[in-house]
Amino acid sequence: MKVSQIAVIGFGVVGSGTVELFYKNKDLIEKRSGRKMDIKRICDLRDFPGSPFAEKFTKNFNDILNDPEITVAAEMIGGKTLAYEYTKKLLSRGVSVVTSNKELVACHGAELIKLAKSNGCNYFFEASVGGGIPIIRPLHQCLAANRIERIAGILNGTTNYILTKMIYDQVSFEQALADAQRLGYAESDPSADIDGEDACRKLCILGSLAFGKHIYPEYVHCSGIRNITLDDVEYVANAGYAVKLIGLIEKTEKGIVATVCPRLVPISNPLSGVNDVYNAIMIRGDSVGDTLFYGRGAGKQATASAVVADIIDAVKHENADIASLTWEDSTDRSFMVPYKSADVRVYVRVRSDDVDSLKGLITALFGYVDFIPRKMRTERELAFITPSIEEYQIDKKLALLSEHADVMRKIRLL
Amino acid sequence: MKVSQIAVIGFGVVGSGTVELFYKNKDLIEKRSGRKMDIKRICDLRDFPGSPFAEKFTKNFNDILNDPEITVAAEMIGGKTLAYEYTKKLLSRGVSVVTSNKELVACHGAELIKLAKSNGCNYFFEASVGGGIPIIRPLHQCLAANRIERIAGILNGTTNYILTKMIYDQVSFEQALADAQRLGYAESDPSADIDGEDACRKLCILGSLAFGKHIYPEYVHCSGIRNITLDDVEYVANAGYAVKLIGLIEKTEKGIVATVCPRLVPISNPLSGVNDVYNAIMIRGDSVGDTLFYGRGAGKQATASAVVADIIDAVKHENADIASLTWEDSTDRSFMVPYKSADVRVYVRVRSDDVDSLKGLITALFGYVDFIPRKMRTERELAFITPSIEEYQIDKKLALLSEHADVMRKIRLL
Repeated sequence: MKVSQIAVIGFGVVGSGTVELFYKNKDLIEKRSGRKMDIKRICDLRDFPGSPFAEKFTKNFNDILNDPEITVAAEMIGGKTLAYEYTKKLLSRGVSVVTSNKELVACHGAELIKLAKSNGCNYFFEASVGGGIPIIRPLHQCLAANRIERIAGILNGTTNYILTKMIYDQVSFEQALADAQRLGYAESDPSADIDGEDACRKLCILGSLAFGKHIYPEYVHCSGIRNITLDDVEYVANAGYAVKLIGLIEKTEKGIVATVCPRLVPISNPLSGVNDVYNAIMIRGDSVGDTLFYGRGAGKQATASAVVADIIDAVKHENADIASLTWEDSTDRSFMVPYKSADVRVYVRVRSDDVDSLKGLITALFGYVDFIPRKMRTERELAFITPSIEEYQIDKKLALLSEHADVMRKIRLL
Repeated sequence: MKVSQIAVIGFGVVGSGTVELFYKNKDLIEKRSGRKMDIKRICDLRDFPGSPFAEKFTKNFNDILNDPEITVAAEMIGGKTLAYEYTKKLLSRGVSVVTSNKELVACHGAELIKLAKSNGCNYFFEASVGGGIPIIRPLHQCLAANRIERIAGILNGTTNYILTKMIYDQVSFEQALADAQRLGYAESDPSADIDGEDACRKLCILGSLAFGKHIYPEYVHCSGIRNITLDDVEYVANAGYAVKLIGLIEKTEKGIVATVCPRLVPISNPLSGVNDVYNAIMIRGDSVGDTLFYGRGAGKQATASAVVADIIDAVKHENADIASLTWEDSTDRSFMVPYKSADVRVYVRVRSDDVDSLKGLITALFGYVDFIPRKMRTERELAFITPSIEEYQIDKKLALLSEHADVMRKIRLL
């Protein structure tokens, strides 16, 4: 039987995890795929003295590109410079590429998928969203009969860990971030996580697959969790909500709206109970209704699980592309609408010396609102949840309100 | 472009839902699959006057079997007599069959998959477990690199609705069942649901895929929820557990153990928050860790979503079988071990006139146990949770205990 030869490019955390998992479960992987496979080459510029895979290492990418035996390559470099260049070269030669590189897929997915198709190979990226959680394949295969109406997800483990700590341990954002860094869940420069950039890339990939057009990161309104305070977390917990960083893309009557921002999630929604570094993605289809996919969104082993699954699928489809894994490029964003034109409910916290007349003003502006009680509420504060109205209108009303009070916080509801 | 012709056999709830969904989203389905498709024939013995699909109907199965244009058939008959016969005839002719028929797959899956492979076609059954929830394909494709260690699921919507009602509305089992029947969630003879038979079939399918050997329904210990009382539900809620009907199959050091029975699920486990008619399946792989899949486990539209996804996949793989969707037949159950040889913690409720000396006896028998308080506890009752020991040992101790008290209930923990 022919042995399918694989290359791994980049031997960092996910790259080494992929090689280790492949050899750990090789018997099972070959049995399930009905094919013999091996990893022939590993490309990395660094030295790995004493590695059990010593004879496979090369520092020269061309050793992989020019090897006609290699039919599948796992790009585990990350970023969009070298990874982009290598991926294009491999696909152009008809070598299938699998990756966990969310940045590259979010920025160049449409182009790379098209390049793969035109060369009779595949570009797979199950590991780019949700770590090991099966989500890409369920979305484009299992839900293929559905018009997708909405995707809402907790897509970043670092921020979810921080928010969970704030809720359960009553610590400040700064303290929770420091804990996350100490445990290795957050990097020393945590901005890509806490400002929502990482979640945004993942939302772009899911949205592009669901709606068939490339959703570029700049099409998405993105704000992180830096401004969330323990005060807000406590107010909303009293009212039956958890604060979560939610990536949300949905089809409205006006067009598609995409945001990554903190949102109040009611405890009746399964996403509210997703804690620590776990991720979860809820997909609403017109036929299936709401489905949810949950698991570890990051980590060496979980991500390797998805990479190896892609390798298996790439080997099995060496001569046929997967038609459903595709979206069109989008040259303009006219199919998207500004997020502020969508109807939304928001939580607002305000401060004033005259709380009683403020209450009257709020009711006059918004009609009926839910005032939220809080244990040990400071006497000069009010918190409330508005009815569902266009966010532009909400902002106008809050501007009026700010003439009479300090508007401390505004957080959208899911 | 060639049009792939499909047949639907059985025009009941799921069959008609499949046809309706196919035509509702035909444009999208064809785009995503990259193929043209049509439903050529619908077979049912009944008349459907005025149906928009009138010209497709036939009462003669041979009109489908002998039509060389038809390459995929959806078996929506149910049961294992006619459905079994038709499926074998179709697969023998090289026609791929997709189904939601959990009974047929649980009882004859190994044989039918093998028959499909030897005839170069496929037997797909995504809709047989979890309704529209993507679970079969994620398990055998996305998690293909994992050794599966455990599957635990809420696999039956009817029983989950009843237990949810009991927990939240404080009604008796009988009252909750009557509500479920009134709402159409339970049949007039509800035994297949509430005795766990339906969940058992689904567990067999998942277990067979995960462990590679046919798990027949008779290999699974199965008990339903008839004996669960409001008293038990209230006791365990106080201790931070929800009672759920759990299908559980796991690989232990001794062998594979499979059960369907009520279990106490701690509120920290996401399965505890799965309410009403929703289903959820948690799969633990050696690389990915715990993943969870959640959604509507039944219903016309949700199930049709999975059936049509299978139809698409069958059309795309007309000339190639999906190697990973398979398991071996098992002629004996020697790879399974009796469920009572597994270690487990159990909840026990006992009644006695002398509660104080009973407490001493319980502690003497089990060592440290968690006694569970209850609001308005009757004075003659005690409830406790044992440490983790082999269930045979637990039963011996309970036999001793029953010489001094009435052992009212024993429920396993997850």
